[in-house]
Amino acid sequence: MVNMTTTTALLTDHYELTMLRAALADGTAHHQAVFEAFARRLPDGRRYGVVAGLGRVVEAIRDLRFDAEQVAWLLDTGVVDRRTADFLAGYRFTGSIDAYREGEIYFPHSPVLTVSGTFAECVVLETLILSILNHDTAIASAAARMVSAARGRTLLEMGSRRTHEQAAVAAARAAYLVGFDATSNLQAGFRYGVPTRGTAAHAFTLGHTDEPAAFASQVAALGTGTTLLVDTYDTAQGIRHAVAAAGPELGAVRIDSGDLADEARRARALLDELGATTTRIAVTSDLDEHSIAELADAPVDTYGAGTRLVGGSGHPTAGMVYKLVAVADEAGPLAPLRPVAKKAASKGSVGGRKVAYRALDHDGYATQEVVVVRHLPGAPEAGLGRALQVAVVRGGHVVHEPTLDEIRAHHRGAKAELTALDLSLAPGAPRLVADPTPLSHLIGATA
Amino acid sequence: MVNMTTTTALLTDHYELTMLRAALADGTAHHQAVFEAFARRLPDGRRYGVVAGLGRVVEAIRDLRFDAEQVAWLLDTGVVDRRTADFLAGYRFTGSIDAYREGEIYFPHSPVLTVSGTFAECVVLETLILSILNHDTAIASAAARMVSAARGRTLLEMGSRRTHEQAAVAAARAAYLVGFDATSNLQAGFRYGVPTRGTAAHAFTLGHTDEPAAFASQVAALGTGTTLLVDTYDTAQGIRHAVAAAGPELGAVRIDSGDLADEARRARALLDELGATTTRIAVTSDLDEHSIAELADAPVDTYGAGTRLVGGSGHPTAGMVYKLVAVADEAGPLAPLRPVAKKAASKGSVGGRKVAYRALDHDGYATQEVVVVRHLPGAPEAGLGRALQVAVVRGGHVVHEPTLDEIRAHHRGAKAELTALDLSLAPGAPRLVADPTPLSHLIGATA
Repeated sequence: MVNMTTTTALLTDHYELTMLRAALADGTAHHQAVFEAFARRLPDGRRYGVVAGLGRVVEAIRDLRFDAEQVAWLLDTGVVDRRTADFLAGYRFTGSIDAYREGEIYFPHSPVLTVSGTFAECVVLETLILSILNHDTAIASAAARMVSAARGRTLLEMGSRRTHEQAAVAAARAAYLVGFDATSNLQAGFRYGVPTRGTAAHAFTLGHTDEPAAFASQVAALGTGTTLLVDTYDTAQGIRHAVAAAGPELGAVRIDSGDLADEARRARALLDELGATTTRIAVTSDLDEHSIAELADAPVDTYGAGTRLVGGSGHPTAGMVYKLVAVADEAGPLAPLRPVAKKAASKGSVGGRKVAYRALDHDGYATQEVVVVRHLPGAPEAGLGRALQVAVVRGGHVVHEPTLDEIRAHHRGAKAELTALDLSLAPGAPRLVADPTPLSHLIGATA
Repeated sequence: MVNMTTTTALLTDHYELTMLRAALADGTAHHQAVFEAFARRLPDGRRYGVVAGLGRVVEAIRDLRFDAEQVAWLLDTGVVDRRTADFLAGYRFTGSIDAYREGEIYFPHSPVLTVSGTFAECVVLETLILSILNHDTAIASAAARMVSAARGRTLLEMGSRRTHEQAAVAAARAAYLVGFDATSNLQAGFRYGVPTRGTAAHAFTLGHTDEPAAFASQVAALGTGTTLLVDTYDTAQGIRHAVAAAGPELGAVRIDSGDLADEARRARALLDELGATTTRIAVTSDLDEHSIAELADAPVDTYGAGTRLVGGSGHPTAGMVYKLVAVADEAGPLAPLRPVAKKAASKGSVGGRKVAYRALDHDGYATQEVVVVRHLPGAPEAGLGRALQVAVVRGGHVVHEPTLDEIRAHHRGAKAELTALDLSLAPGAPRLVADPTPLSHLIGATA
């Protein structure tokens, strides 16, 4: 028999629940705790990253319930004992979350997301939070570079077929948040309101007796503003057939093979010769930020990015971790928290809750990722820069639910704080790194 | 308002439905068609691939329905017209699918999955089939190399936090199919019956006043057979604390940082000195097939692979395409099919339905991927080798539903047909490539 429940509760690692089991037995489950999600480093050669996935994290946590079938399975298989099963059956997150906004820029050690509550309620969220943030952030970070490379030309996300079917929806959303114009993924349109686009594949042309028949059918069904795929047989002949079918009002031609710069130049010349001077040229075929940049001088109007985008342009995960940074030694909301951190040289981190600011120069460019270590959230310190974290959840209630348009606008503003050097596609180290150690001394933070 | 429907119907590209719309208008929607999913090449340096995802494809197709809310949205947004909406509202796949079994080895141009039916019912499946096959196959192909590298030692999949939360479940399943022993992902256990494993993270140790307290609690809750994570503070001291807490019957210690070969040797010596001679050593930390192979001489009992596994060890997609290879020019089940293929040099393929065999030598090693082009499925040709395709769906009904154990057994058998050269982790070209062109002549196929 197959278990069909689709709640998010079991999208988690086994050890979260065995830790919970031991912590419930010894009482530490009820101690207040603070966990932070952050990346120790950016993917090799990347100069900045873009946070994405927060909206999906919030939704996943809000919906997180262990239903009876799941709890019974956990008991039957021995993952949890009765006490833990009872806890899970009543699980609701009642703590707080502070985070960098979606679309925000981040750097190594930026405290991207902070969860506070009891150890028990926070530890259960680790895997789910990281899965969402690591995936969506990887896509957004790659997509942002493609947006820069496209220099204002239209960018379409079309990688659904090259990634897991549900990851495809999240990838479409993440790409849109950082400036892509539309996606091919219908579920992203249905679920999130991302604009969708699409016309036809080679199969449509091949499914007709000849190319003119296919184009005539497509124009009849979708109008002269449609995009005709012209490289099934011979591209020049395809363009002639396309203009013959739609007239000079033809919306666009798409080219999906060959040397795209060359093909685009030839297509432009031929379209102009045929009087189709307003017909746009779309190119697709494993594009990434580098190949898009190389096409800057070609007469391309629209780029379609797929495989490379959904693979994070070589870096499919953001590599964020979720670490306990402060914990109480007794139960109760007012018990003092002590900062904690793993000691290992290669994977060490700094204990204590961190509050982050982006210092800006007079022209509005980022000069420093300022991080203050302190125990409790509160009013931001004045004069340290733009406050990077917002209250997202308070007492289990979601208090931050921006629209996609608001996220897109925030991203544009945050990206405008980057310099030309930061935005360079050439491999390089990030100019800014969040380093809480000296600053905790500088401003006399308590932990 | 947010659309919450979770059927698989809209996990697809916009253009599948606009093609459908035009094809319904001109009648080609009702022509019989054959589509094939295949990879033009393997990821750079890979010598073989492993098919995975077929079970998920079958399930996704069986459940594929466009519900009223989805159809209304497609109409409202203008993606489809009324005729197409009516077609989608009644959509059920009634065609046939033939495919390489899950766990089967494949090579460039192997006809991994063949869908036949009307153009309309086949074209709607393209994106969903490719998303599933490309993701799951990428993971299985990477995982199979890790299984070879582990040489029989225990392998755990623990990459959930480094990939999309639903992709994580599919990745756990794919890794298990090719020989991983267990996963950390609970949903993979709940949903598919993959064995799950897990004990504790650094947060558990840090959440206690000291390491001995944490270890005592874990042993009390999970027994002496548990795995204690010993590198939170000082690994040697951690091992002493671990054996003190559990006694020499301690199940295992886990090391997650440092030079793992070095750390494992030191841990083994110290465990033996403390009398914990049967305590196993587990290592985790961005392992892939290469780092696993490098640990062959170290006293490691268990490898945990995460980040690299769920990223396909550098190749997160299998890059398969879904191409129309034969189509009728009139409606009706008996209309003759003509082979079709795109002409472009870089993306060309061979038209016609392909039937595949693996020729084996007297020792049972694969010598050739034999591909015959012909119109209809039927009894396999004798003497060409092991028939690689099985009937999966007939007339819309699923006729192939192996258990995970059966898939694992099939994979072991198929992998045993590979030579040491094929299994080498060093970059190299695949020894076998499916090339239908000469064979269609050789055996006088009709198309």
